Amino acid sequence: MKKLLLTTALASVLLSAPAAFADEKDDRIKALEEQLSFLAGEIQLLKEDRATEKAEVAALVASIKPSAGKASADNVKITMGPSPKFSYGDFSFQPFGRIHLDYAVFSDDAADHPNGAEFRRARLGMKGTVAKDFGYKVQVDFANEGVNFKDVYMNYTGFDNTEIRLGSFKPGFSMEELTSANYITFIERSAPVSAFGTGEVIGLASYFHGDNWSLTGGAFVDEAGTNSTDDEAWSVAARGTFAPVIDENVILHLGASATHRKPDQANESFDFDATAENSIQRADSVSANFANVESANLYGLEAALVTGPFSAQGEYFVVDVDRDSTNSDLDFSGAYAQLAWTITGESRPYKASSGTFGRIVPARPFDPKNGGWGAWELAGRYSTLDVSDGNVLGGEMDSYTIGLNWYMQKHVRLMANYISVDTDRNAVTPNDDPDILLFRAQVDF
Amino acid sequence: MKKLLLTTALASVLLSAPAAFADEKDDRIKALEEQLSFLAGEIQLLKEDRATEKAEVAALVASIKPSAGKASADNVKITMGPSPKFSYGDFSFQPFGRIHLDYAVFSDDAADHPNGAEFRRARLGMKGTVAKDFGYKVQVDFANEGVNFKDVYMNYTGFDNTEIRLGSFKPGFSMEELTSANYITFIERSAPVSAFGTGEVIGLASYFHGDNWSLTGGAFVDEAGTNSTDDEAWSVAARGTFAPVIDENVILHLGASATHRKPDQANESFDFDATAENSIQRADSVSANFANVESANLYGLEAALVTGPFSAQGEYFVVDVDRDSTNSDLDFSGAYAQLAWTITGESRPYKASSGTFGRIVPARPFDPKNGGWGAWELAGRYSTLDVSDGNVLGGEMDSYTIGLNWYMQKHVRLMANYISVDTDRNAVTPNDDPDILLFRAQVDF
Amino acid sequence: MKKLLLTTALASVLLSAPAAFADEKDDRIKALEEQLSFLAGEIQLLKEDRATEKAEVAALVASIKPSAGKASADNVKITMGPSPKFSYGDFSFQPFGRIHLDYAVFSDDAADHPNGAEFRRARLGMKGTVAKDFGYKVQVDFANEGVNFKDVYMNYTGFDNTEIRLGSFKPGFSMEELTSANYITFIERSAPVSAFGTGEVIGLASYFHGDNWSLTGGAFVDEAGTNSTDDEAWSVAARGTFAPVIDENVILHLGASATHRKPDQANESFDFDATAENSIQRADSVSANFANVESANLYGLEAALVTGPFSAQGEYFVVDVDRDSTNSDLDFSGAYAQLAWTITGESRPYKASSGTFGRIVPARPFDPKNGGWGAWELAGRYSTLDVSDGNVLGGEMDSYTIGLNWYMQKHVRLMANYISVDTDRNAVTPNDDPDILLFRAQVDF
Repeated sequence: MKKLLLTTALASVLLSAPAAFADEKDDRIKALEEQLSFLAGEIQLLKEDRATEKAEVAALVASIKPSAGKASADNVKITMGPSPKFSYGDFSFQPFGRIHLDYAVFSDDAADHPNGAEFRRARLGMKGTVAKDFGYKVQVDFANEGVNFKDVYMNYTGFDNTEIRLGSFKPGFSMEELTSANYITFIERSAPVSAFGTGEVIGLASYFHGDNWSLTGGAFVDEAGTNSTDDEAWSVAARGTFAPVIDENVILHLGASATHRKPDQANESFDFDATAENSIQRADSVSANFANVESANLYGLEAALVTGPFSAQGEYFVVDVDRDSTNSDLDFSGAYAQLAWTITGESRPYKASSGTFGRIVPARPFDPKNGGWGAWELAGRYSTLDVSDGNVLGGEMDSYTIGLNWYMQKHVRLMANYISVDTDRNAVTPNDDPDILLFRAQVDF
Repeated sequence: MKKLLLTTALASVLLSAPAAFADEKDDRIKALEEQLSFLAGEIQLLKEDRATEKAEVAALVASIKPSAGKASADNVKITMGPSPKFSYGDFSFQPFGRIHLDYAVFSDDAADHPNGAEFRRARLGMKGTVAKDFGYKVQVDFANEGVNFKDVYMNYTGFDNTEIRLGSFKPGFSMEELTSANYITFIERSAPVSAFGTGEVIGLASYFHGDNWSLTGGAFVDEAGTNSTDDEAWSVAARGTFAPVIDENVILHLGASATHRKPDQANESFDFDATAENSIQRADSVSANFANVESANLYGLEAALVTGPFSAQGEYFVVDVDRDSTNSDLDFSGAYAQLAWTITGESRPYKASSGTFGRIVPARPFDPKNGGWGAWELAGRYSTLDVSDGNVLGGEMDSYTIGLNWYMQKHVRLMANYISVDTDRNAVTPNDDPDILLFRAQVDF
Repeated sequence: MKKLLLTTALASVLLSAPAAFADEKDDRIKALEEQLSFLAGEIQLLKEDRATEKAEVAALVASIKPSAGKASADNVKITMGPSPKFSYGDFSFQPFGRIHLDYAVFSDDAADHPNGAEFRRARLGMKGTVAKDFGYKVQVDFANEGVNFKDVYMNYTGFDNTEIRLGSFKPGFSMEELTSANYITFIERSAPVSAFGTGEVIGLASYFHGDNWSLTGGAFVDEAGTNSTDDEAWSVAARGTFAPVIDENVILHLGASATHRKPDQANESFDFDATAENSIQRADSVSANFANVESANLYGLEAALVTGPFSAQGEYFVVDVDRDSTNSDLDFSGAYAQLAWTITGESRPYKASSGTFGRIVPARPFDPKNGGWGAWELAGRYSTLDVSDGNVLGGEMDSYTIGLNWYMQKHVRLMANYISVDTDRNAVTPNDDPDILLFRAQVDF
């Protein structure tokens, strides 16, 4: 509006300028005076407007930057991915969790392995830091409507590239054991890893790493929550990994681990068992449960290769059990080898600092309206487990699995596994080798 | 200050203008020149001021909108109600929970229904989204110091007005069953809903809705966490609701549901039971627990009416049980009808998208200093349940309840129920019909 | 750029002004006209620039200050310490938790007290307010992979200096019982406090306080979650505290409590028991478990003194049990006294509003690189417990404990206790008094 007025006013001045009479100057001066007065008013308005705005912006700045040293929404940093992580100075906090839901169909649908659905994992947790270099993690699994401790520990990270952990967590053993269940290629870990791994136990461990290597060693006692009637079992475990090649095209991983385990001194027994690589069946498929144990040594070798959308991974385990003088020592062993191809081209990420695999993130998340169909992965695995030796006949099992994974979103995965098992006559249920179709829906946050 | 100077300067120019001498033009031109120079300076100052402010505002904008893809306190949206919900792009997260604490006084104070207090519900949960259209909810109940899965599911909302759920949740059955326990009118759901409803079970379901209708259908397996020794039970359930009238004054709800249930194939049994509409008593009041079941069909009809502070609600259920060839089929039934009056005038909100009721929010929350006394509601209910038929004599029960609800705050409710029950001679404890005074304190967040 | 142009234009006007010819006025007027036109353009640009910026700032303000009544990151207040607390209007919310991990070494390492590690506490919780003056707290302990209710209550704080609580919490009894396990001086509370305290139970209580006094009284029923077969146990408890001296140098605390307890009417029994002040041993050290109880009265006296880094604390308890006519009444008693010295000089903080102690905060948190070594505390305790009287011979136990506490950070504490116990022949395991070395690692958030 004012712009129009101004333009008109100026136009009238300029149009009247060419007049040639004596009074012409008077008119021009008069016009100039009026115009000047008008412009002065305009400037005045602009200045007042500026003052108003300055106050407004100052108030805005004040509202955004509160007094230093006091946390508020504006200096607490929040990142989401997908649960929120709050950071302020040395403090941080993040809630998290996961849901894994399984459904299994067995070819013979028998009493000890009925078709059915179960929550495999339903976890809630909180993690964070309470001071410079001092952190914690509490992750509880409520699947099957019980309480199971997973990572429940405090840690110290004050030394370079080093973490010291105290609490409940997994000892240094097996790449597949230590790779998160959110990231492993098949629905269940291979039978030998289930049989020889311990899951989370109470202990104290150190973790060191470089750009392409990791090393961990720790001492552990019995599983969290166990109330044995004599001294608790203990173990020491160490694992080292090395990646001689880590570049854009190829990742090569090598690893080795060694564990020494003493059983609970009351019953002096060990139990190495496994199902047919699913969690729905009621009883184990093979199981070596025996007493009179002095101790056991477990050794593991690991190798993995990633090149573009292809990955290969394998581990070999051997267990030497020392028993008392009246019982012969035992040797058990197991191994698995797997191949995977991400059809949609994504590559499997590797974490050199822990010698484990990470999450396959779909390049084009599921969004049919925009042509996104997620990532698809095809994989095969062979595993073998032998827990029969001497007078302990726990059985042998070979498992063949074909897996199809649909990474719909970064945090949503659907999985289908077809499992064919071959157990020997020493298996828990002799001559019972059903084919298994296993499904999982998984979300983590 | 400058404003004053400017005004004075202009005034002097204008006042001197009328002078009539020959030098008058000179003076006027000189004054104009001076004035012009002054205004030019003013404009210059304004421009410099603008430049300063532009930088300031730019810095402000930069501080508020960090680099794309990285969340911070300033672009994560937080809403509270009363627990905080965090949103950033396609991610959201919200913790939540509730406490329901009950106290019961029985007129005869017998061994199987002693006076006493118990947590009816004590829940913690987390819910959110992990990607566009992909969400989750994990709600665990710890009441009675156990672990009970409630809503524990993932969902997909990528189709319009549609939700697909996978996990543990309630099948489409009964308006009272599906209305949150935070919102139902009486302390416990009516006996027929307790007897015929399943609570949360594992399944896959779809939810559709329009402005005044909803439709859900799903397939379910056994209850979450159950370890049966044969194939798990399964069911399919569908429910539709329609609200022919939804306006400011009147809401009319109609609904129907149908469920087909197969029992666990190992024991082929069903159990339809209920207490006298309280959770404190130790044993059920009526219970039809029988085997040799082929399957059952459950049908439900629903009607509800809200007009201002008045609401009426009723449901009728019939259950047809097919048994094997040597046992006669069974018919069970139940119904309830209730009337409620919010004395303080608040109306009961209706959710057309799910065909359930919502939360009565007090118009004047409890705040005696400012004359706020919350909302008060008076309600009555009659329920009847008959689980006796053929050779299965589970009993019949009529229950009469008067309820007084005090909605102190939106999220705080105190409830008192007086319950009079009349069971027949086939009840679990014959001739034992105590009057019950039941209290609840409830908070949700 | 424009500034330069403007300056040049003005300079040319001013420099040409002194010309003395007749046309001089014409020229001056012409220059003025041109200049005026230029300035008008400048003002126009400024105005347009202002309009753009106004829109920009308005958008900025809109993005920062959403419509009233709707929270966003900018008006939800977040404080961290170390878990985040969110506040918005009358709403607040804070998640929290703790990990306490113990390891014990027994000198005789017997079957009922084996060396071993256990989580003593592993808790997750949420607390907050849902309306003006209405709050809640839900804290669940998952240690030993079970579910234990701790503080699970709702409260009202609408009266000055007063809190009304309803739910599960500790009755008013014993300074040591009511001081958080995060803050107590020794790893376990003294044997008499363990024997005579109830931990959290369901009840209704009021809390009042002034600047140097506190008073609480409440009525309680059986422990949360218990399913007894008759009327639940109940009790009333009251406690008052007074601090005659609270200044910078000296704090003197005095307190007294009285409790009346009725047992469960089905078994009419009480159980007063305690371990040797550790949670690892399998069985109690002394235990008076007896029936035929009418009721019991418990009385407690408290005194504590803090002066600089030194603190002293002691309590005395007496229990009078009324039994039925055929059994003689019983008198039990217990006491403890402790001395503590914070070697690094920190003082033990006192909370007059609850008559309990707070957290010792290290003046120089652990940070070796910067010479911080945390706070160190040395403490000694003597406790005595006598639960033998009449025909109930539960045993007597004297315990001597030396404790060393390392407060590494405000929220991280390591503790070591050496415990020497002396039980009599009526103890649960006669003549079995191992020396105990007990360790704890503790983090809370």
